[in-house]
Amino acid sequence: MVSIIMGSTSDYPVMEKAAKFLDEMDIPFEINALSAHRTPQEVERFAREAEGRGVRVIIAGAGMAAALPGVIAASTSLPVIGVPIKGMLDGLDAVLSMLQMPPGIPVATVAVNGAQNAAILAAQMLALGDEALAMRMKDFKEGLKQKIVRANEELANVQFKNKVN
Amino acid sequence: MVSIIMGSTSDYPVMEKAAKFLDEMDIPFEINALSAHRTPQEVERFAREAEGRGVRVIIAGAGMAAALPGVIAASTSLPVIGVPIKGMLDGLDAVLSMLQMPPGIPVATVAVNGAQNAAILAAQMLALGDEALAMRMKDFKEGLKQKIVRANEELANVQFKNKVN
Amino acid sequence: MVSIIMGSTSDYPVMEKAAKFLDEMDIPFEINALSAHRTPQEVERFAREAEGRGVRVIIAGAGMAAALPGVIAASTSLPVIGVPIKGMLDGLDAVLSMLQMPPGIPVATVAVNGAQNAAILAAQMLALGDEALAMRMKDFKEGLKQKIVRANEELANVQFKNKVN
Amino acid sequence: MVSIIMGSTSDYPVMEKAAKFLDEMDIPFEINALSAHRTPQEVERFAREAEGRGVRVIIAGAGMAAALPGVIAASTSLPVIGVPIKGMLDGLDAVLSMLQMPPGIPVATVAVNGAQNAAILAAQMLALGDEALAMRMKDFKEGLKQKIVRANEELANVQFKNKVN
Amino acid sequence: MVSIIMGSTSDYPVMEKAAKFLDEMDIPFEINALSAHRTPQEVERFAREAEGRGVRVIIAGAGMAAALPGVIAASTSLPVIGVPIKGMLDGLDAVLSMLQMPPGIPVATVAVNGAQNAAILAAQMLALGDEALAMRMKDFKEGLKQKIVRANEELANVQFKNKVN
Amino acid sequence: MVSIIMGSTSDYPVMEKAAKFLDEMDIPFEINALSAHRTPQEVERFAREAEGRGVRVIIAGAGMAAALPGVIAASTSLPVIGVPIKGMLDGLDAVLSMLQMPPGIPVATVAVNGAQNAAILAAQMLALGDEALAMRMKDFKEGLKQKIVRANEELANVQFKNKVN
Amino acid sequence: MVSIIMGSTSDYPVMEKAAKFLDEMDIPFEINALSAHRTPQEVERFAREAEGRGVRVIIAGAGMAAALPGVIAASTSLPVIGVPIKGMLDGLDAVLSMLQMPPGIPVATVAVNGAQNAAILAAQMLALGDEALAMRMKDFKEGLKQKIVRANEELANVQFKNKVN
Amino acid sequence: MVSIIMGSTSDYPVMEKAAKFLDEMDIPFEINALSAHRTPQEVERFAREAEGRGVRVIIAGAGMAAALPGVIAASTSLPVIGVPIKGMLDGLDAVLSMLQMPPGIPVATVAVNGAQNAAILAAQMLALGDEALAMRMKDFKEGLKQKIVRANEELANVQFKNKVN
Repeated sequence: MVSIIMGSTSDYPVMEKAAKFLDEMDIPFEINALSAHRTPQEVERFAREAEGRGVRVIIAGAGMAAALPGVIAASTSLPVIGVPIKGMLDGLDAVLSMLQMPPGIPVATVAVNGAQNAAILAAQMLALGDEALAMRMKDFKEGLKQKIVRANEELANVQFKNKVN
Repeated sequence: MVSIIMGSTSDYPVMEKAAKFLDEMDIPFEINALSAHRTPQEVERFAREAEGRGVRVIIAGAGMAAALPGVIAASTSLPVIGVPIKGMLDGLDAVLSMLQMPPGIPVATVAVNGAQNAAILAAQMLALGDEALAMRMKDFKEGLKQKIVRANEELANVQFKNKVN
Repeated sequence: MVSIIMGSTSDYPVMEKAAKFLDEMDIPFEINALSAHRTPQEVERFAREAEGRGVRVIIAGAGMAAALPGVIAASTSLPVIGVPIKGMLDGLDAVLSMLQMPPGIPVATVAVNGAQNAAILAAQMLALGDEALAMRMKDFKEGLKQKIVRANEELANVQFKNKVN
Repeated sequence: MVSIIMGSTSDYPVMEKAAKFLDEMDIPFEINALSAHRTPQEVERFAREAEGRGVRVIIAGAGMAAALPGVIAASTSLPVIGVPIKGMLDGLDAVLSMLQMPPGIPVATVAVNGAQNAAILAAQMLALGDEALAMRMKDFKEGLKQKIVRANEELANVQFKNKVN
Repeated sequence: MVSIIMGSTSDYPVMEKAAKFLDEMDIPFEINALSAHRTPQEVERFAREAEGRGVRVIIAGAGMAAALPGVIAASTSLPVIGVPIKGMLDGLDAVLSMLQMPPGIPVATVAVNGAQNAAILAAQMLALGDEALAMRMKDFKEGLKQKIVRANEELANVQFKNKVN
Repeated sequence: MVSIIMGSTSDYPVMEKAAKFLDEMDIPFEINALSAHRTPQEVERFAREAEGRGVRVIIAGAGMAAALPGVIAASTSLPVIGVPIKGMLDGLDAVLSMLQMPPGIPVATVAVNGAQNAAILAAQMLALGDEALAMRMKDFKEGLKQKIVRANEELANVQFKNKVN
Repeated sequence: MVSIIMGSTSDYPVMEKAAKFLDEMDIPFEINALSAHRTPQEVERFAREAEGRGVRVIIAGAGMAAALPGVIAASTSLPVIGVPIKGMLDGLDAVLSMLQMPPGIPVATVAVNGAQNAAILAAQMLALGDEALAMRMKDFKEGLKQKIVRANEELANVQFKNKVN
Repeated sequence: MVSIIMGSTSDYPVMEKAAKFLDEMDIPFEINALSAHRTPQEVERFAREAEGRGVRVIIAGAGMAAALPGVIAASTSLPVIGVPIKGMLDGLDAVLSMLQMPPGIPVATVAVNGAQNAAILAAQMLALGDEALAMRMKDFKEGLKQKIVRANEELANVQFKNKVN
């Protein structure tokens, strides 16, 4: 099971992309709200108990001084993926608050608002021990090319005097 | 009592300035190492018990993804002052990790490596209820002008043909 | 009494959050406009006389080259809290103009537009000498968790095939 | 097996920390030099064949326009961890070149020069399917607290008139 | 022939300016979608075969971790011009991902969203061996002054009491 | 006479504030469009002839790679004031292109879009040799306080239970 | 007379270049230490009395939260030139604290550590009413070309097989 | 012929790499010092006459407010390559001053201090009309792989208990 965590329902429109991807890949997941600053004890308990409850990978989205993924990583040995959420300073505050973790406690950080990529990363980790999922991930990867195929079809229709098709 | 916290003894050369100022002002203080990422439970216990142990203000120095002051602030109602410590990215990572706290849990952030200012701020808070300390703080403030007086004495000795003294 | 200062009524929509929080906590406060650049003498007189008038903590919001909190801090020993207000450069100009104070004269800086946090910080300082306020602050802190409780209730209603509740 | 990749031997002093950690955890690994810009075909072949050769996780360190981890991730479904290496612009160029991956192809980015954290993240992924390694990782995590214990011992020896021990 | 490459049709509104300029200058060109991360093999084949197919200059637009122009440059000796496309971080991520290429494999980077300038640069390169095009480029350059002439005409109509015409 | 220069009529809404201030202060001025990149010879001729035509101070507004004020400063000994105009990168590109002039050729740079301040600076320079203007400038400065007076009147009307008036 | 102000003698090695240039141009000047934060009343008195004492232009150097030039500009109608002094954050904090002045009170900002350019700017202002100085400034400007002449002489001696002289 | 331009001999240690590369590739070149700010007329004359003197590509290195390549590009239709030279602000000032050229006048910008890449880009342009040079460029590109081959040889000698060779 993957656990998706966010600090506020205002982060849900971004984090929903992670849920959708996991759902498509048939990966069980849960979604909860937790805050490193508003509910620190719950965060710690969540992190300590996650593995026992069957969680394998944690995806935590947060904005501003985004301590959530780091504080979760402090209390579990499970891999933690951080999604910096864009706010005041173009999300740079959240990026640096997640990325610059001290030696010993990593957070796997993805792009600003990159919740889908966080889910893909989680799926890649789970696929290390799940061949059927590994196959689905390869199909997904193959499918990415279709976007380029379609883009080329659209661009083929663009008309210019000197355009060579 | 003021409690000075840092994540590593490598931060001590910066944080020492806070200790020195408090010592000069005759304010009792303690110094401890705690890490939001290495010892999360100790941080939380420290924060929850601080007020009961007689701590009035907490000064926390940290670098990189500097979650320490925010995580302490999450578990106490005492004022928490954050000192961003310069590292890889000129300290900007630590500044944003402390400063950009979400609504509800403030950290009073000072300049990069500004540990003395953190101690002055702590003293100003304590002086609200301690007239003798308030007097010492006013003397200290008065003394700041001496640095400018001495600078002017030095500059008076600079010689140029067109310099007016 | 807390004194809330701003440079322009255009800052009021941000600074209003400070007033609201203080009002909720039953902390007397005043609101005034002052400008380090337009009314420097008034700023200095304000700062010098604040303590005598019963002000205990000053909250100053300013944008751009936000000298206001630093200049107030220069003429009083009261704690000064700075609220950087977002403008042209995402508020980074105001952040650095407040945060990077020289040794001797601190400004307790909070997040960009973080006026509520400034008021919480002021209340925390006053609570050091006011047990009733300290109790109200603890209640407020406890209440922060409710936002997370409600967020979890909302997230529990999100439906996905592979979502575990 | 973990595969450590770097673009130049000048990156080895940073990337060596990844090798040391994997060695300590008894995780088999290989180290190779590859460049997205100097040997693009070798990078692609490496990425395509990695899984077949028994690689489970890839750690790629790169500086400047750090395309290496992203380009590897383009041709494999294995998880790819990126280590931005500090150069001209404080490593911010490498951070953004790795972190800001487009939807579909994530790179798990860690701190500037954070090669040890990259190895810990790789070990966490492998530990999902290896209980003995999971135990060693928990021991390692426990051991992190020792650094704080020793720091407290050192700080206990610091002497000040007003210091409370 | 100039080859215009982009990663997605969402980049077309920016890259269209390159097509329009080449069309005006009667320079044959093609437009294709390719992605360093979604279709790495196609990118490499494209780059290797470009010269043989008669391509002389390549213009590649990309946003975020904009590896496309660099990866194309890795597999061809033709000049490659990069157009950083504005996204989350004001386009700074794309600028640094293109500009900071390692020694040996340059990308000629232009302004954020500067697709017209990319086409002008391509035309300048082709004009080195095409006198008729060189003449058209000089006419174009001469024409740039007209924008200033017209601007002066408009400004001449602005009325102020103290304005001197 | 003050000469206001801009690179495009799209800059006029910003630069108009400079014209308005000069008009209010009864300072004769001219407005012209010139471009360091589109009409380099005209810029140079303008700069060389400005003093002879009676220009005393030059105000140049420009965005992006804002070479205009620096290039004008290269060909005249008159003071040149630069107004960085906000564009793609929040105006930081224009700020650095104007501000970071090499030793020997200064540009007096003002805030992003700060055209009124540029005009005030020009008026301050002219007032050094014009007592009547100096008086008007003092009146203007005095008038700035009115904005604060009015702001205080508005803030006096704000109603809160705990607000002290 | 030009007045050179700085906050500390540690700024003198930078600000000395301003003194040297004024001395070369035979412009009378004074040098004083003043601090917006340590000696606010002295700063205000200095600013109010400057014009009466014969000061025509003020050059103020400051680092960090560099309020000094802005606060001086608040209390005088004389032109104020700001020199941002490099410190912790590459001087960007000082640049933004000076440059981003609010409407009404400009500071003419020059490059980081650009004290010589500040003096040149001051001389240009004074030269508006002093023909002899204007001639010396033109000679100085002419002399700048000599640096390029000498550079070309050195570069003429560089030897390469394919270098054309 | 390629023309290498720089603003000062202090830039030569960076720009020398361009000269070395051109020399290796048997491309005739010249080296001159010119400054957009110190010798504006010479820059303009240089730019206007370059094509007539047989120059095909111009490489201009500059730091700070790096107007040189843009101002050259303003007066010639030849391709101009800009090399931002690292100074005060990590070279970001020079990057933005070159990169952010307005529509109509491109500068092909390379990495901070990337003079060798500028020369490679120039050679790629010339190779469009010179088959022998095109062959040498392909050999050079092939040679880049040797650096990776040697790096792999060195890394093969690194010894770890769990390293797989």
